[in-house]
Amino acid sequence: MNDFRFYAPTYFCFGRESEKDIGELVRRFGGTKVLIHYGGGSIKQNGVYDRVVASLREAGIPFMELGNALPNPRSGLVYSGIELCRKEGIDFILAVGGGSAIDSAKAIAAGVPYDGDFWDYYKTGKPIDSALPIGTVLTIAAAGSEGSPDSVITHESGMYKCGASGEALRPKFSILNPESTCTLSAYQTACGITDIIAHVCERYFTNTKNVEITDRLCEGVLKTMIEESPKVMANLQDYDARANIMWAGMVAHNNICGVGRDQDWNSHNIEHELSALYDVAHGAGLSVVMPSWMKYVLHHDINRFAQFAVRVWGCDMNFSNPEITAEEGILRLRQFLSSIGMPATLFDLGAKEEDIPALAAHLFEAKQEPLHGFMDLYRKDVEAIYRLAL
Amino acid sequence: MNDFRFYAPTYFCFGRESEKDIGELVRRFGGTKVLIHYGGGSIKQNGVYDRVVASLREAGIPFMELGNALPNPRSGLVYSGIELCRKEGIDFILAVGGGSAIDSAKAIAAGVPYDGDFWDYYKTGKPIDSALPIGTVLTIAAAGSEGSPDSVITHESGMYKCGASGEALRPKFSILNPESTCTLSAYQTACGITDIIAHVCERYFTNTKNVEITDRLCEGVLKTMIEESPKVMANLQDYDARANIMWAGMVAHNNICGVGRDQDWNSHNIEHELSALYDVAHGAGLSVVMPSWMKYVLHHDINRFAQFAVRVWGCDMNFSNPEITAEEGILRLRQFLSSIGMPATLFDLGAKEEDIPALAAHLFEAKQEPLHGFMDLYRKDVEAIYRLAL
Repeated sequence: MNDFRFYAPTYFCFGRESEKDIGELVRRFGGTKVLIHYGGGSIKQNGVYDRVVASLREAGIPFMELGNALPNPRSGLVYSGIELCRKEGIDFILAVGGGSAIDSAKAIAAGVPYDGDFWDYYKTGKPIDSALPIGTVLTIAAAGSEGSPDSVITHESGMYKCGASGEALRPKFSILNPESTCTLSAYQTACGITDIIAHVCERYFTNTKNVEITDRLCEGVLKTMIEESPKVMANLQDYDARANIMWAGMVAHNNICGVGRDQDWNSHNIEHELSALYDVAHGAGLSVVMPSWMKYVLHHDINRFAQFAVRVWGCDMNFSNPEITAEEGILRLRQFLSSIGMPATLFDLGAKEEDIPALAAHLFEAKQEPLHGFMDLYRKDVEAIYRLAL
Repeated sequence: MNDFRFYAPTYFCFGRESEKDIGELVRRFGGTKVLIHYGGGSIKQNGVYDRVVASLREAGIPFMELGNALPNPRSGLVYSGIELCRKEGIDFILAVGGGSAIDSAKAIAAGVPYDGDFWDYYKTGKPIDSALPIGTVLTIAAAGSEGSPDSVITHESGMYKCGASGEALRPKFSILNPESTCTLSAYQTACGITDIIAHVCERYFTNTKNVEITDRLCEGVLKTMIEESPKVMANLQDYDARANIMWAGMVAHNNICGVGRDQDWNSHNIEHELSALYDVAHGAGLSVVMPSWMKYVLHHDINRFAQFAVRVWGCDMNFSNPEITAEEGILRLRQFLSSIGMPATLFDLGAKEEDIPALAAHLFEAKQEPLHGFMDLYRKDVEAIYRLAL
């Protein structure tokens, strides 16, 4: 096991009516004037916005609003948000929505006290150690940004999708009310499920030896997703399935499952090109990329993939030929993703075979070659992984 | 799933040489004058004390010492510690040791700013919301107190062993260096393993339905313990096994595995009489009580015990008679505990059959009848559970 640090000081309110605590929590964590940052406006239809505003009003906390944080959130809105916060003396940002609203809020929070261009953090990867405090009100189980120190933004000049991270970005509090996710469509729900599974897999496929505790926690989250996802796809109003998935989404990404081990993140890196350039949902992109990445790197550690197959998917171990078991695990993941309506190929996303060289080239404009991880990936490897997704 | 709150803002430094950060962390969390609180003095033989003191000195932080926090820590030392802290203007307590030193430090931390008798908290169970900040340097994987808001103290007047809890008791930071646990004896190690397993089981046996995510996390921690414990018992110096067990011990008890579900804690309640009156190790007492409690409550929910048997112990499900599977799981736990050298009967602890009525009577002097949990337990039930441990 590797040495590590783990610090996850987010206060979680989970369950029905948990929005009631928002005003009190904003005050507890030092907010006196709030920016509510949200997405396309669905929160104004499903009642979430009203509950948030009622709690702030009851606590006597003034607030402003900034909407339009869209999927694959863009730099332009971040710049507007930073300007607004500075002008209005905002000292707390409340993100209401999914990973897009939260990641956009985090970027604004980092930008306000920073003298330079907020994009510096995303371009260079330097840790963000100063930001306005933020809280979140989660409306989709997916990104895990409600409990993570991470943020991913797409820069409109060149459509580079890059991540930044830092202790200051961990939300002070997060409100998780599974009821708020019951109005999501089947497709949105499935995209979230895929993202959660990917967050675990990016940690699971590691070169670090002797990491039984985090292996087992990863497997536990994955088995939960396998068990609960069909329930919620069959009945989008299933509160308990929504609740299990919502908490699994947090556990999958606050790093309790990832400490002490090298992590991968190359399915994410390779996917980001797809969602940035074709503006598809991140989860849909991951559904295409992740099994292809697995097929490509399988021989790097057949036993780890066999473990994935046996422990997560319940496959029988083929002791005379573990590779068959390893391949079966990947196939089972592929079948699972198809069963919840997720795409399988680049074509399903609107990409074409001839786009592949440009996709790989664009990736390495923003990132250094090779991509480090479970296996180092050079441009030729990334192209091959895209080809496996045709 | 039940609604819940989860807030675990402890900063963990895990790994070799992690003591180096102590001085800096004390400063970060506001300490300017430290009380180092420890147990019987083993930390002065195994190098831990020297590393702690070196880090405080390097950071220029003055400190005093209070030793002798023994297993099943007593109220007398807590009163002395409170007096010392007040007299000397101590503003941070650093517990160096296992659960006993940490729980004793928590009680002192709670008592310093409190006008009344610190025991009020333990007697009444009222939440502790004000305390001096504490940090921990863990030397045995067991109690999970390094990441929990809980403390258990034995009052010398009457030998009542009671717990208190509160957000203010969560350590600000905890230093987990698995090397520091490599000097423990096989018996101490096994007692710690038993305590960790019990912390998960107290959460696992629940009446709350649809809690797949926490079920799976509980199972993951238990499977880790089953996998790693024989390694460490075979080689007490096995760093990686020690590391897995040490992190599992934290995960088992910071409540990430217990949120959203009713919990039990009656094996602990019933055990506390044994460790308070016979002064045996808490883990040894649990090894006797826990399987007996399981046998007694088995019929309350046979399927849950069958799930425990199949998912945790890998038993084959007997579909025509699940009770056989359920019983097999309890037997497997019993065999596992014996395999690591833990006692099986009250006699092994020095108790006699004729002590049982007095044990049960003493329990209900400090606690209300019935004990609530997976099954409500009246005095006759507690006596029956002790009898099953003969």
